[in-house]
Amino acid sequence: MNEAQLVARVRELFSPRIGDDAAVVDDQVFTTDMLVEDVDFTRAIPLATIARKSLAVNLSDLAAMGAAPAYALVALALPEWARERADELLVSLANAAKEHGIEIIGGDLSRGEKLTIAITAVGRIVTRPLLRSGAKPGDRLYVSRPLGASAAGLSLLSKNDALSYAEREFAESCIRRHLDPEPELALGLALAKIPQVTACIDVSDGLSTDVHHLCEASQCGAEIERERIPVFPDLAAYGPKLGIAVREAVLDGGEEYALLFTSSLRESELSRLTGRPVYRIGRMTRERGVVLVDGGAARPLEPRGFDHFA
Amino acid sequence: MNEAQLVARVRELFSPRIGDDAAVVDDQVFTTDMLVEDVDFTRAIPLATIARKSLAVNLSDLAAMGAAPAYALVALALPEWARERADELLVSLANAAKEHGIEIIGGDLSRGEKLTIAITAVGRIVTRPLLRSGAKPGDRLYVSRPLGASAAGLSLLSKNDALSYAEREFAESCIRRHLDPEPELALGLALAKIPQVTACIDVSDGLSTDVHHLCEASQCGAEIERERIPVFPDLAAYGPKLGIAVREAVLDGGEEYALLFTSSLRESELSRLTGRPVYRIGRMTRERGVVLVDGGAARPLEPRGFDHFA
Repeated sequence: MNEAQLVARVRELFSPRIGDDAAVVDDQVFTTDMLVEDVDFTRAIPLATIARKSLAVNLSDLAAMGAAPAYALVALALPEWARERADELLVSLANAAKEHGIEIIGGDLSRGEKLTIAITAVGRIVTRPLLRSGAKPGDRLYVSRPLGASAAGLSLLSKNDALSYAEREFAESCIRRHLDPEPELALGLALAKIPQVTACIDVSDGLSTDVHHLCEASQCGAEIERERIPVFPDLAAYGPKLGIAVREAVLDGGEEYALLFTSSLRESELSRLTGRPVYRIGRMTRERGVVLVDGGAARPLEPRGFDHFA
Repeated sequence: MNEAQLVARVRELFSPRIGDDAAVVDDQVFTTDMLVEDVDFTRAIPLATIARKSLAVNLSDLAAMGAAPAYALVALALPEWARERADELLVSLANAAKEHGIEIIGGDLSRGEKLTIAITAVGRIVTRPLLRSGAKPGDRLYVSRPLGASAAGLSLLSKNDALSYAEREFAESCIRRHLDPEPELALGLALAKIPQVTACIDVSDGLSTDVHHLCEASQCGAEIERERIPVFPDLAAYGPKLGIAVREAVLDGGEEYALLFTSSLRESELSRLTGRPVYRIGRMTRERGVVLVDGGAARPLEPRGFDHFA
């Protein structure tokens, strides 16, 4: 089975609550994410960083739902090498949990050939849950921060070229964004309080894929203006020299953990209400499908982001 | 770090809610368990069976807390071979969930070299949570069903000897108990309703280890009478011929998922109140440590059950 077939089967067999970034039950939301060695990270990454990221990807799902972090459970499969340094992992997890106000209330320890971290996070709905399904034709489409750094960071992780001082600074900031993504928890909570925010998802698979997820759930289409998509600082300048496909990093790069959301409100109004910049990148349309307007030409934007089984 | 060091560190760093079969938060309990290929099962086991068991071990934790199943989340790392047959796994999971009245509300699909199933289960407290920590010196110690079949089944799984008809029947019933354990959900709920039931745990690591867990949490000791421990039917008769160490299977065998619990009430009274047999195997003592009385002699019972990192 490919991913699409599997997801279709999951929706057939299991709860209709499945399909959003987290499942809503009364005033709680539930989400789970598993990170696997040699699929999601390698042993070259510090254990403390892997632990922080494992929690962050779950917190980002809570953020996309407009929920406040409440509880988490952590199941670990530890190979020998990771067991010897398990303290590093546990301390980092405890610190990250403290920082984001989530209480780790349970876990499971097991052996395994590959380090595997499965975290389940529980969030509390404060005002209302943000769903993927509320966008309406005519709504403006927003992204919460500049894109492209995570894919660039992943590509730069494996580079050993001699870099200039400025290039090294740029590379390090991209790598940091890839390894230590910041979940948009405060923004998610702020958006949930604004009645004119209609839908939300986090950019985990890549903009081109996640906008399709949002459109499908909302049963409408979207038109994105290429020039409006905010690009990570200096990516356009340094990217090409460092062998990074900038356009792909921005449009298809996964693990951004920015929020992608829709609202009838204007950019200035949303910025005022949330107290921070947000970026209008297009609008929702009645016609299905996603269109990218680039230099005057409009073309379909195919979902070329992360495929969990590619 | 060995398991004891890891567990000590987890208790230091994380929530004091950790330490029971599941974490209690208001009227909910939360638990997570991860099963890993070549650690907890092999590819020789049908996917449908692995899926059922993954859910059952989590449900057993809810049973030990006296909670009713409510919701579950399932994170899967699927290698190529399992992806091709994923439908078998998903259908089995859906059926097992339906059978036990638990709603699967979320999940995560990922690649992985080894099939890994991490399930988080949420239970609802109906009357009160059963904890490990309530046992008092003088309480009677009970087990919910005969022991030994799971360890025997595991050992018989890898045997290819020619068996007589009766031996084969016995072997199959042991293997079934190992692969398809029945969580004691109804008993857990019934025990929670009886105020004189003071503590409870499920036998997942093995009687000799789990009685120590219960004693440590309750800050007391226990005395177990060897002759009183109910032994799985025919295990004493067929076990030795089939190469099974019966004493070890009963005392140290893990993955039984029987309940081990304490109460001031007598066996007949508890059987009447729960409407089923329960087995008194000893009593709780003021003196710390666990003593096994066997043929008139009393010796310390060391925890020789499952070590997650052995």
